[in-house]
Amino acid sequence: MEGFSFSTDVTVRFAETDAQGIAHHAAFVVWLEVARVAYLEKNAGGYQAIRDRGLEALTTEVQVCYHQAAYFDDRLTVWTRCTDVRGARFRYEYRITRDGELVAEGYTAHATVDRETYKPTRVPAWLAKALATAESRAS
Amino acid sequence: MEGFSFSTDVTVRFAETDAQGIAHHAAFVVWLEVARVAYLEKNAGGYQAIRDRGLEALTTEVQVCYHQAAYFDDRLTVWTRCTDVRGARFRYEYRITRDGELVAEGYTAHATVDRETYKPTRVPAWLAKALATAESRAS
Amino acid sequence: MEGFSFSTDVTVRFAETDAQGIAHHAAFVVWLEVARVAYLEKNAGGYQAIRDRGLEALTTEVQVCYHQAAYFDDRLTVWTRCTDVRGARFRYEYRITRDGELVAEGYTAHATVDRETYKPTRVPAWLAKALATAESRAS
Amino acid sequence: MEGFSFSTDVTVRFAETDAQGIAHHAAFVVWLEVARVAYLEKNAGGYQAIRDRGLEALTTEVQVCYHQAAYFDDRLTVWTRCTDVRGARFRYEYRITRDGELVAEGYTAHATVDRETYKPTRVPAWLAKALATAESRAS
Repeated sequence: MEGFSFSTDVTVRFAETDAQGIAHHAAFVVWLEVARVAYLEKNAGGYQAIRDRGLEALTTEVQVCYHQAAYFDDRLTVWTRCTDVRGARFRYEYRITRDGELVAEGYTAHATVDRETYKPTRVPAWLAKALATAESRAS
Repeated sequence: MEGFSFSTDVTVRFAETDAQGIAHHAAFVVWLEVARVAYLEKNAGGYQAIRDRGLEALTTEVQVCYHQAAYFDDRLTVWTRCTDVRGARFRYEYRITRDGELVAEGYTAHATVDRETYKPTRVPAWLAKALATAESRAS
Repeated sequence: MEGFSFSTDVTVRFAETDAQGIAHHAAFVVWLEVARVAYLEKNAGGYQAIRDRGLEALTTEVQVCYHQAAYFDDRLTVWTRCTDVRGARFRYEYRITRDGELVAEGYTAHATVDRETYKPTRVPAWLAKALATAESRAS
Repeated sequence: MEGFSFSTDVTVRFAETDAQGIAHHAAFVVWLEVARVAYLEKNAGGYQAIRDRGLEALTTEVQVCYHQAAYFDDRLTVWTRCTDVRGARFRYEYRITRDGELVAEGYTAHATVDRETYKPTRVPAWLAKALATAESRAS
């Protein structure tokens, strides 16, 4: 997808469906997190590496627009990019597609905090650089 | 809360916490749904009544801003109001508080569809009226 | 229910249903935990009190038999009793009913561990006594 | 693993962890389902194929023994075999391992029902045969 250099796939679990016969809308929020973890795995040594360095990334905002229903066993592609790293804050944008068709899109906003004190902590240089490097490949 | 005439309480389940020691951000999306169901129970005969009349309400957008972490066993109040019923679309706004302090806020957008065909269907008059009556009590 | 002195109610959330139109079987496992938390709240000062004293209770086994399907918005009663407190281990038994009819039954087994070291730690006397007192009321 | 011819991998999601810092015990129940779906995908044309032929497989019992904690981002292998196909009933057994070490084990029991009437329906010959063929490869 144009503007995105990274994607990961998820398959809709039966437990993620609801009585409307479709994937429940809250499941998408979990898939965005799965995509962030995969993104960090590829581009910054993994989320656990960040935690191991004494940081947590809190989620401060989530937004998802649902364009199509997703169904049990659908294989979805979650396109993911990190944008706007500023101070202790950063942001991801997503497009979820199925066979190239847009199913949903959204963004999440995050703040890095010290893992002990939960006080806001500037995104460390090594992480900001890793994210910038990853995104420079997308253009 | 000013501008809201309805609220329902949820208690954070242990299963809803994550390894950050706080309620996972996707759990809030489920709580908004719990609040909508309670809202419809009080104001429109329940969500099942809507389904029984051949309609489903799809969720077309979700947005949540997280201001404070919520913890295991916290009792949260989900303030809920329905706004902007137009054609086949309607919208809810939420404030989640703990002991009067704002924990999160957000909105969801929905579309009513025929339960068989999943084609958009105007919000029926009886439901639009029930929602309008509910909200007229809030002002 | 005979042999049970404690119960708590849960209402089936829409997010807990699946594409079979019924409550997903994993949701029952979460409800058993909700019931344990409510049980400890009433009988032993709450699960957080146990955690605050430096203990965690790990779940070492779960078993559930499903007799009837549960549906969206069903109000279920989870009957709960604590049995067999021995050393670092204890066990709960459950019956889940709807309007007096048995929907599911099961048990869970647990081990208390030190919250820092995660080494098995004898169920403390105060907790064993609180549980025994609670159950003596059931007979 | 001896006696098992099929396995599938799952990676622990952050949303599946809890405030104990480990994967929540209910997440394992979902992983067993993920494994069943993968098993049927490989051996019987997929679970959706079964649904498309007018059947549902209900879960009538779940049991899990937890031997080790699982952690965020752990890659787990779910060994799965189908046993005891009899009439309208069948059963799966599981071993969950991490780097060859046993993390959990369990079983689930199921009943096939007609998708419209939800009445018990004999496991169809094509499915029984597919399952038997799959398991004959394990010995």
